[in-house]
Formats: sequence, C-alpha cells, structure tokens
Amino acid sequence: MQQPLAEQTLDSKADKSGMPAESDLAIQLKEMPGWHLRLVDGIARLEKSYAFADFTAALAFTNRIGGLADEVDHHPAILTEYGKVTLSWWSHGLGGVHHNDLIMAARSDTLA
Amino acid sequence: MQQPLAEQTLDSKADKSGMPAESDLAIQLKEMPGWHLRLVDGIARLEKSYAFADFTAALAFTNRIGGLADEVDHHPAILTEYGKVTLSWWSHGLGGVHHNDLIMAARSDTLA
Repeated sequence: MQQPLAEQTLDSKADKSGMPAESDLAIQLKEMPGWHLRLVDGIARLEKSYAFADFTAALAFTNRIGGLADEVDHHPAILTEYGKVTLSWWSHGLGGVHHNDLIMAARSDTLA
Repeated sequence: MQQPLAEQTLDSKADKSGMPAESDLAIQLKEMPGWHLRLVDGIARLEKSYAFADFTAALAFTNRIGGLADEVDHHPAILTEYGKVTLSWWSHGLGGVHHNDLIMAARSDTLA
C-alpha cells in the first residue's frame, strides 16, 4: 500500500521520469479537493485557492507555505489577497508537474 | 508645491472623485519607475514587479507590504515567487485606481 502523498519523501533527483502523464494527473487530482491544472505560458501548474477570514490570516498561510518551501528548497508561486491565497506548484526546470509537486500540494493542504 | 506621493495622507473617504482620469494616470506613472496599469477582468490595477535575490528576500518584502496594508486597512494582491514579487494596488469598491493607490504604490517602493 502506498503512503499518503503528504507523507511521501521528495525525489531529490527529480527528472522527467517522475512527471505523471496528463491522464494519470487527472485521476490523481480527483482525490485532491480544490487542486486543478492551470497552463501558464504553456507550462502546466497545480493550482488551488484557499479562503481565509482576512488579509492577516491569508498572509500567515503564505508564510507557512514559505517555510515549507524553504525546508525542501522547492518554491511555489503564492498570490496573497484579502481573505484568499492562490497557490501554484510546478517544476520550473522540468517544464511541468512532477510527482514532487503533488507531494507539495498535499503537504500544503495540511497547513491551511 | 505638492508633497511627494509617498508622504501624502490617504483619503479615508475615498470615492470616485479621487480616481484620476486615464490620461492623468498615464502622466503620473511616467514618474513612477516600474509601475504600469494592468486590466484584470476589466478593472484597472497598478502593478509592479520587484526583483530579489531569492525566495526568502521576496517573502520578506511581501510581509513588509502586508504590514503597510494592515496599517491603512487597504490591501493589495501580492504574488510571491522565487526572487520576485509582483504587487498590485487598486480599489476594489471603486472598480479601479484611486489616488490612494498611487500613494500606496509610492510607499511600497520605499520598502523594497
């Protein structure tokens, strides 16, 4: 039995072999409420918007995600607004979504 | 002589009378390096991207902007990425850019 995504270890030598096919990603994302794929300049990202009571609560989440990102040296894009954070995970170097990004997305949910 | 933008006091009763015409905004923005107008869903925002050494430095700026926003209870959108912050000021309630947003943009530059 596979470990839950959020508890899996990141592959430190991430290469294209760890990038799921789009059809597999679609299946995986059905199990991850709120997460969807978004193309930015033709590059797929995992994206999710989280709701918060106000700006302070949103920014606090942004900082928790920042801490998580620094821990593993893999960094997302985080859009902080009043009562809302939109988080995007993808692998710049690989030009798309790696299994590591799915792990980071699942871990992010544990900090919301 | 007018006070520098960054030192002006926000108009706490901001209404449409304080929204500069697009031609006046264009003239004002020529004096504000890096700031430009961007339309999002038909609503004009002031936007600027700032470069930083890494994610930590970018997130630190995001937090300084967050502090500034809370001080005056006017909140921007802040996109934090590795080595880069994209900041947007506009007045949600008024559906565009108010003179207050120009003041906040100028104050933001003092925190970069």
